[in-house]
Amino acid sequence: MIYFDNSATTRPYKEVLDSFVKVSSEFFGNPSSLHGLGLQAEKLLTQARTQVANLLAVKPTEVYFTSGGTESNNLAIKGTAMLDKNKGKHLILSSVEHPSVRGAMEQLQNLGFDITYLPADQTGRVMVEDVKASIKKDTILVSVMQVNNEVGTIQPIAEIGRLLKQYPTILFHVDAVQAVGKVPLNLIENGVDLCSFSAHKFHGLKGTGALFIREGVRLDPLLSGGNQEWKVRSGTENVAGAVAMAKALRMTIEKSEKGFEKMKRVKSLLREGLSRIDGLTINTPLENSAPHILNFSISGVKAEVLIHTLEQKGIYLSTTSACSSKKQLPSQTLLAMGVPDDLADSAFRISLSYDNTEDEAEKVIVAIEEAAKQLRKVMK
Amino acid sequence: MIYFDNSATTRPYKEVLDSFVKVSSEFFGNPSSLHGLGLQAEKLLTQARTQVANLLAVKPTEVYFTSGGTESNNLAIKGTAMLDKNKGKHLILSSVEHPSVRGAMEQLQNLGFDITYLPADQTGRVMVEDVKASIKKDTILVSVMQVNNEVGTIQPIAEIGRLLKQYPTILFHVDAVQAVGKVPLNLIENGVDLCSFSAHKFHGLKGTGALFIREGVRLDPLLSGGNQEWKVRSGTENVAGAVAMAKALRMTIEKSEKGFEKMKRVKSLLREGLSRIDGLTINTPLENSAPHILNFSISGVKAEVLIHTLEQKGIYLSTTSACSSKKQLPSQTLLAMGVPDDLADSAFRISLSYDNTEDEAEKVIVAIEEAAKQLRKVMK
Ligand SMILES: Cc1ncc(COP(=O)(O)O)c(C=O)c1O
Ligand SMILES: Cc1ncc(COP(=O)(O)O)c(C=O)c1O
Repeated sequence: MIYFDNSATTRPYKEVLDSFVKVSSEFFGNPSSLHGLGLQAEKLLTQARTQVANLLAVKPTEVYFTSGGTESNNLAIKGTAMLDKNKGKHLILSSVEHPSVRGAMEQLQNLGFDITYLPADQTGRVMVEDVKASIKKDTILVSVMQVNNEVGTIQPIAEIGRLLKQYPTILFHVDAVQAVGKVPLNLIENGVDLCSFSAHKFHGLKGTGALFIREGVRLDPLLSGGNQEWKVRSGTENVAGAVAMAKALRMTIEKSEKGFEKMKRVKSLLREGLSRIDGLTINTPLENSAPHILNFSISGVKAEVLIHTLEQKGIYLSTTSACSSKKQLPSQTLLAMGVPDDLADSAFRISLSYDNTEDEAEKVIVAIEEAAKQLRKVMK
Repeated sequence: MIYFDNSATTRPYKEVLDSFVKVSSEFFGNPSSLHGLGLQAEKLLTQARTQVANLLAVKPTEVYFTSGGTESNNLAIKGTAMLDKNKGKHLILSSVEHPSVRGAMEQLQNLGFDITYLPADQTGRVMVEDVKASIKKDTILVSVMQVNNEVGTIQPIAEIGRLLKQYPTILFHVDAVQAVGKVPLNLIENGVDLCSFSAHKFHGLKGTGALFIREGVRLDPLLSGGNQEWKVRSGTENVAGAVAMAKALRMTIEKSEKGFEKMKRVKSLLREGLSRIDGLTINTPLENSAPHILNFSISGVKAEVLIHTLEQKGIYLSTTSACSSKKQLPSQTLLAMGVPDDLADSAFRISLSYDNTEDEAEKVIVAIEEAAKQLRKVMK
């Protein structure tokens, strides 16, 4: 099997699952319980939080565990809006955000909030001037992702952060779900106030994630109740999931130190090999591009059919994002980049992990070339 | 170890963890992916949903997976309020609800919704007449739990359901987190529209739960995004967690068939043995009481100290609920029942699983008696 769909989800590391099982079976107490089993669980939770914080170079008290990237994004955006609604009602997002950012914003719009979508250039990148131009007196939040999940474009987070430092009442939210272990985060230097993470994108478990909330920033909770996670996210803590996430993050960052150059080589190989294929256009930009994502279109080839042809050879990749693939919607990001409809409709995404190899890349190039040729013949 | 704190959380069954690991490692695909790994994952999710639905005697399309009981409660309540806000702004809850119901309601109150708390009688029970009396023209939701988590009182869900059938525009939400496998649910017969579940309370995994949403009932999502779970709960599905939950539910229901009488005997033994202890008052009512929870107070004994003394003998129980134990707040439920402050302050909760035995009960009675005697001496 060649698994090239790591932006949809990753295979959990064995060590991550082992930790999950150990904590779930041996330290199953509720961290809120007063007795020893509760204290043990609480200690493990605190340890996991500290590990995550250290790996992100932030404070443990700035790490809030959630059920994943979608919850982190919804919490960051709605939590700001509901708390700050008397301060202002204007929010800004890029037009290439993940549906969980877009969706949260659309719900706010229905509640009377004012939303501005930033355009993207041909490479899928937001322009800092546009951020500046869209700021109003009552702007409370700017939300821009670090790495786009469909084409891999890296956004100018440092520049936007620098700009926003001049507007201390505006919070800066970054969806870093696709960035972790691939692109430096520099949350503090970049002036990021809120940052979303999802563990299953870095070999952790589905249903676990985190939100970085900078010290001093307050949010209205989405889930209220027992006041866990400093009242921002109630619910019995998924201790084993948090421990597993900390381990996955550590392992991913370690692997990135050793494997980053290899990943870049695998991607270059793919870019060069694929771009030689007849009718194939690479959509992922050369500059400001994450090392793991490569998006391309093959004119005249139906995306779904190619996916299934490759699958028969044990090769797994996807049509744009997993989220929109079922709905068969063309990629929002490609449309924002000005890619013509027919090419946006026949777009594919390869997304790598640190375990993928150059050998796999060679095989995939050959397989795509053959499949595309064959499918074109059939279609003619 | 004698673990008598199963209402705080349970130890996951080995088989449940095994399923989780198998699915996480072998079927790790994203259910939204178009390729085979995605389809496999989707199939497992559908299977888990069907199993849960069958066990609850509802339709698979009425089962929505969430991150736990707190999310289910918040989604049911806020989801109704935000969607129906133009229909009405009045919501009713009992004064013995879990903090995740209370908290959601308090947030709505801050948004201008009108909230009525139903009183409870001396046994912690809501009276149907009070529900009827509190209904207004613009009432949109009534939320009453099935089994109280602090004293174990079973609420008159069937009667309230019968009453509410006369008010078809009012939704009926039931928090069944403590009821599963202990008390018959009869969701359809009882006219329940929304019902919350949490897997870690029945030997499933923390961070997994479900919300039953009766066919035709609509909610505004708390988490929007990729439109998973029929658009009501976005976020990459925790497939392994759902499969594990289905297994935990099946095993719990099977164990309840064999173990129900034993559990009742264990509780009776405890009730009889403990009530003979000097200065000890049983707070859990004899009638309408779940088989697994026994709440009692010992006058003049500090709850925390007794918990630690018992722990040294390997016995784990709790002071009221896990949620409020850290905050050292007296139990809301006991206060609503009219238990005097000093007794509410020295309250303990024993909560059983089907694995607890009569032998354990005998040991715990002796241990509590000895500890209480000793602690009273020290305090004098
Ligand atoms: C950029 C981005 N943000 C958010 C998410 C949502 O994360 P999760 O699947 O954990 O809900 C995803 C993936 O689905 C993503 O790629
Ligand atoms: C009655 C009741 N409802 C809701 C919850 C919350 O469930 P969870 O811990 O899964 O968030 C609990 C337990 O904490 C409970 O006892």
